Amino acid sequence: MNILGVDIGGTNVKLGIVTEKGGIIEHGLLPTPAGGPEAAAAKVAEWYGGRRKHHGDARAAGIACAGLIDGVRGFLYTSPNLPGWDNAPLGEIFGRRLGIPVAVDNDVNCAVWGEYVMGAGRGTRHFVAVTLGTGVGGGIVIDGRLYHGAQGLAGEIGHHVIIEGGPPCSCGGRGCLEALIGSASIAARAVETAARTPGSRLALGAGLTVREIHEAALLGDAAAVETLAETGRLLGIGLANVVHILNPEAIAVGGGVAGAGDFILEPARKSMKEHLIGDILSAVRIVPAELGNMASFLGASMLALEKQ
Amino acid sequence: MNILGVDIGGTNVKLGIVTEKGGIIEHGLLPTPAGGPEAAAAKVAEWYGGRRKHHGDARAAGIACAGLIDGVRGFLYTSPNLPGWDNAPLGEIFGRRLGIPVAVDNDVNCAVWGEYVMGAGRGTRHFVAVTLGTGVGGGIVIDGRLYHGAQGLAGEIGHHVIIEGGPPCSCGGRGCLEALIGSASIAARAVETAARTPGSRLALGAGLTVREIHEAALLGDAAAVETLAETGRLLGIGLANVVHILNPEAIAVGGGVAGAGDFILEPARKSMKEHLIGDILSAVRIVPAELGNMASFLGASMLALEKQ
Repeated sequence: MNILGVDIGGTNVKLGIVTEKGGIIEHGLLPTPAGGPEAAAAKVAEWYGGRRKHHGDARAAGIACAGLIDGVRGFLYTSPNLPGWDNAPLGEIFGRRLGIPVAVDNDVNCAVWGEYVMGAGRGTRHFVAVTLGTGVGGGIVIDGRLYHGAQGLAGEIGHHVIIEGGPPCSCGGRGCLEALIGSASIAARAVETAARTPGSRLALGAGLTVREIHEAALLGDAAAVETLAETGRLLGIGLANVVHILNPEAIAVGGGVAGAGDFILEPARKSMKEHLIGDILSAVRIVPAELGNMASFLGASMLALEKQ
Repeated sequence: MNILGVDIGGTNVKLGIVTEKGGIIEHGLLPTPAGGPEAAAAKVAEWYGGRRKHHGDARAAGIACAGLIDGVRGFLYTSPNLPGWDNAPLGEIFGRRLGIPVAVDNDVNCAVWGEYVMGAGRGTRHFVAVTLGTGVGGGIVIDGRLYHGAQGLAGEIGHHVIIEGGPPCSCGGRGCLEALIGSASIAARAVETAARTPGSRLALGAGLTVREIHEAALLGDAAAVETLAETGRLLGIGLANVVHILNPEAIAVGGGVAGAGDFILEPARKSMKEHLIGDILSAVRIVPAELGNMASFLGASMLALEKQ
């Protein structure tokens, strides 16, 4: 039997019918409805109702959602991108509307699970994935299971401090990994770097995106290359911290910013090695994530299968 | 049946006969013999042979050892305090000499397991312990099991960086937690603080120990109190990092330096809270370790029981 996969973001809901092997039979995109989780669940149930005629009942649904979520209880504490959704028992709401078993988790945890089951983490037992974008997220697989921690909030790698008293972070702290390599910080660093690099095409930097910095780096722009290398160097310190604590087999790096590929990953691997005690830990592989923006949607589906 | 517990340090081998509940029937101390692991195993076997007459056969032995150890394989990579012990298959060597099943792990992991089973971690499922001394060590219990990671080196909390480019660490890195709150750094900070604090009894600081700083703090010495509070503040940042990544139920703080108690722990709790995202994670309890310098010995014994 198939699975209904759902990935709820602030703008759109990505959803689809997925096979037990992770094959996508059909998928769609709905604008995230106003009206909170009940309205969203109704919309998803409506879409699912239409597809059931063609593909039969789904055995379960997996729901990925942006925000602070207790994945064990399927409970959303709060989501910056979903105003009005605070303290929502998503598992219960979607379960009632859909009439099938529902697994709910944070979109980052879902993406990590997707990478573990069918992406960059295949074949490992202890696996970490980090997503780089506006924010820096992370999730952990230990002994073949998604690890949630006591309150369901494990894996907040973006908010661990690597420069005490460093630049301010969206979380209210200072010097968190996210404050250093979130996309806004990268763009700001690019503008600074370009200002002291003659001839850089990044010089007019208002509204600069990481994609534009990557494109400039591909054309050999020194300021762009330096900006991404510094991003990688800082990322490598964060990865070394994660390796010292968790010693996973591999860490996958995904998210929009990771689209810059080896401009970031190579300096990150080098910096990580420099910050590790002993050569043994250097065996931890740093690999690009493989599932792109389908990771949360596919991972939620696979998680629904796992939880049955 | 009883268990043989062994804790191998650079100077002494602590060993004893322990019940399955962790009661100590008899214990002894031997000088760590020159001649490497074979000589040590022979000495331990001799001691055990003498005790068998009185207490009967032990069902297993648990060996705690300082150094970089793969606890799954019982293999010692290297130990700064045990020259000539590099690349020793301790599990096999001690197993052969003792003729009973043997579990081997890093002394810090053993201490963590001891605290989990019969100390400050009782009743939790996800637990971390940190030991503060010359070095800063750590270990992790996840879902009721000691977590080793891919190479058996998880829990090296002392070598995660919290001040990028900060003070040099014994590991060759900079700004690691150990570089900031290892006992030598605390002593150095006490001397600096005393130098600008009129009337501090710490002013003549050569060879100052953390115990002396603690004693001065108990007498109200402002420089001593400030030094320990700063230690706690830095520790709290490290604990917040661990909480963001692992979200355990509790973190126990032990080791000689932790003898300074709430002079360090209270500022650590405050600093940790300030560095956490969201109030939810503040539920993580920071507690003193309970087993003192018997933790590794008792934990090794309990680990031997677990592994059977």
